[in-house]
Amino acid sequence: MAVYTDIGFEELQGLLAGYEIGTPLTFKGIAEGVENSNFYLQTDRGAFIVTLYEKRVRTDDLPFFLGLMEHLAERGISCPLPVRARNGAQSFTLKDRSGAILTFLNGVSLRKPEAAHCAAAGRALAELHRAGSGFALRRPNALGPDGWRELANATHARADAVERNLGGLIGEALADLTKNWPRDLPGGVIHADLFPDNVLFMQENVSGLIDFYFACDDMYAYDLAVTLNSWCFEPDGAYNITKSKALIAAYQSGRPLTAEEQAALPLLMRGAALRFLLTRLYDWLNPDPNALVRPKDPRDYAKRLRFHLKVKQASEYGL
Amino acid sequence: MAVYTDIGFEELQGLLAGYEIGTPLTFKGIAEGVENSNFYLQTDRGAFIVTLYEKRVRTDDLPFFLGLMEHLAERGISCPLPVRARNGAQSFTLKDRSGAILTFLNGVSLRKPEAAHCAAAGRALAELHRAGSGFALRRPNALGPDGWRELANATHARADAVERNLGGLIGEALADLTKNWPRDLPGGVIHADLFPDNVLFMQENVSGLIDFYFACDDMYAYDLAVTLNSWCFEPDGAYNITKSKALIAAYQSGRPLTAEEQAALPLLMRGAALRFLLTRLYDWLNPDPNALVRPKDPRDYAKRLRFHLKVKQASEYGL
Repeated sequence: MAVYTDIGFEELQGLLAGYEIGTPLTFKGIAEGVENSNFYLQTDRGAFIVTLYEKRVRTDDLPFFLGLMEHLAERGISCPLPVRARNGAQSFTLKDRSGAILTFLNGVSLRKPEAAHCAAAGRALAELHRAGSGFALRRPNALGPDGWRELANATHARADAVERNLGGLIGEALADLTKNWPRDLPGGVIHADLFPDNVLFMQENVSGLIDFYFACDDMYAYDLAVTLNSWCFEPDGAYNITKSKALIAAYQSGRPLTAEEQAALPLLMRGAALRFLLTRLYDWLNPDPNALVRPKDPRDYAKRLRFHLKVKQASEYGL
Repeated sequence: MAVYTDIGFEELQGLLAGYEIGTPLTFKGIAEGVENSNFYLQTDRGAFIVTLYEKRVRTDDLPFFLGLMEHLAERGISCPLPVRARNGAQSFTLKDRSGAILTFLNGVSLRKPEAAHCAAAGRALAELHRAGSGFALRRPNALGPDGWRELANATHARADAVERNLGGLIGEALADLTKNWPRDLPGGVIHADLFPDNVLFMQENVSGLIDFYFACDDMYAYDLAVTLNSWCFEPDGAYNITKSKALIAAYQSGRPLTAEEQAALPLLMRGAALRFLLTRLYDWLNPDPNALVRPKDPRDYAKRLRFHLKVKQASEYGL
């Protein structure tokens, strides 16, 4: 086991001198997230996560991410709350990296969520969208259509070596999405990565939402599409309409979809599938020799995209 | 971040059905140890470590390791206690690996222990030696002189590429040690790897001893030599006589050394340095492509061995 950047206990002590969070009892590197270095810290006052942000999280974006978690936590969303240092700072610098101390949330993420869990995730997503309104900072979605085009160009030459006609699939989907991508649907702060890994459960209840490092401003219904893509496909590639119905209905109980959002759902589902197909394909073709985790197979999302291309209307998602 | 072998929450639930340790609240892979897969588990009844043993720990040795921890814990040593399943088993099999659930100990390991910490470690080592007596199982030390010879042979051809004349240093030290290695010093169960990583502290007190997966039967004073080698050298390679004095005196307050043990200390110090030099050299020359941690530089222990070769008598260690 390893972390990208280790923190020794003596370094932790130096860091904690700037905080009022008690005396450390336990401090361990943990396998949380894909690219940052994370540590579990227990003190006599509570449990915390200490994160060092590695290259993928830009220091310039930290005020947005950390400020958003503070905003959401203040509005009752169970998400990590950045602990401010004595001097008021939300982040620190250690070993040439920015870092933050956040409250630790109990709960476990599921590998095989059932319909009730999907419903709980949908409800939590709607609550997140509502709670995010009024947050003062803005962050454009770097992984929208323009970002997809960059990734498509960067992967085009080798896409077909990963799967036959993958380049063609991406090219056609991108052309369609670029032309028809909606611009006027309701939007605000979205999580943009609410996979099952990022939702903690205590039994069938959501106990926490984590990993806000893709959060940005975009259409709410796109966030729903990302969530449906990651919660409602079975390991064999089948779309589980029971889970989808449960997730959408629970979402709508918190935030009803407009007629325009409903009509746009198939398009948004294709966009969400393309986004993860492209980032996974890029990471697959450009593996980081220092990475501690293997890149995820992009073909899962190619399969999802092909499924969505056959969908004629939103009702096929159980809407 | 990653673990060698991951355990999903649903797999954990299946496993916990065989135990009476409560409902899981948190379950996370952690960076503990070098080669096993370890998970932090918190339930409503307490905190635990779930370990899957990867290749370096042989399943045949588990009854010794787990039985020893149980034996020591019953005698007041603060070490992980293997939790028995409902059916009495100390270990389980999951994903083709043996595993165990152990109680979690609070405390932090130090990168820069001071003399007071060295004394606490020495005291804990003596207590460990005393508490181990009466343990029924036996396990020969696979990393004694015979094991060193195998490693020396396996690394000889490429040793000098790591450091000039390293092969010569190893060959001479091995010849001397093989000829003079003591056979009749007091012995019993030893930890054999009591590095600072494996001693947990709460302030200046030892709160736990961990990682018993090199434990075996051997000479007590050799265990002291392993501990002195790993606690008393400064990062610049200097031997810190203040720390050494403190560690030895504290050890002797719990278990006084015999005159023969005292006289053998320089030889044992060379043996302990050679043992870690050889295993690190082997791992350095044969890196595991699946390893998540970089091999440790063997030259640190070559430097220590050279230091010990200049020592004329035990008093130079502060004895």
